[in-house]
Amino acid sequence: MNTTAPAGSRDLPHPSREEIRLEGVLHALSDPMRLQIVQELAAAGGDELTCSQFALPVTKSTTTHHFRVLRENGVIQQIYRGTAKMNGLRKRDLDDLFPGLLDALLAAAARQSARQN
Amino acid sequence: MNTTAPAGSRDLPHPSREEIRLEGVLHALSDPMRLQIVQELAAAGGDELTCSQFALPVTKSTTTHHFRVLRENGVIQQIYRGTAKMNGLRKRDLDDLFPGLLDALLAAAARQSARQN
Repeated sequence: MNTTAPAGSRDLPHPSREEIRLEGVLHALSDPMRLQIVQELAAAGGDELTCSQFALPVTKSTTTHHFRVLRENGVIQQIYRGTAKMNGLRKRDLDDLFPGLLDALLAAAARQSARQN
Repeated sequence: MNTTAPAGSRDLPHPSREEIRLEGVLHALSDPMRLQIVQELAAAGGDELTCSQFALPVTKSTTTHHFRVLRENGVIQQIYRGTAKMNGLRKRDLDDLFPGLLDALLAAAARQSARQN
């Protein structure tokens, strides 16, 4: 795994675009909490969000775990800005690797949410 | 889980269309072998295939496990016809629940395969 963020002791490891695997992306999205995180990041339209901006009904350590799974599978980037860990969707990388996939996944997630409510 | 196949002691349990969850579908497809199985079923164009028609580099019990994960998450149907267990993609159910998703997943899988070769 390469680090795409600038060098520094607090940088978190990210797969390069070429290292992102479809199976890994699907694994990352196979959990309701992680799917919700990705939906919220997509709704933010490219803006970065801190972990605390997500209203997840789980403990902080579980939240941290979910963000790590998303990062390690290339779905999100996590970058420290001062004391805040900021999260952003790797939409450009995913769209480049798998055109149309992220949009189809988000549409499916929205459809499932609508069906439940 | 309901059984959509006709009643009988050898029927295998399948989720009904309404019970299929996006997270489950993505979990089922988050493994290279299972992704390959789905690609081969899609290439068969609606035809059913026996498990032995798939050239998977794993043991028979591992193969059985992968087919079961796909069935239990609503991706395939498995029906006994005589002594053969036949496998078919639940394309109609998936397309109805999540329009465009299966095609986007298959396109992404094909793109990843092409990149590797």
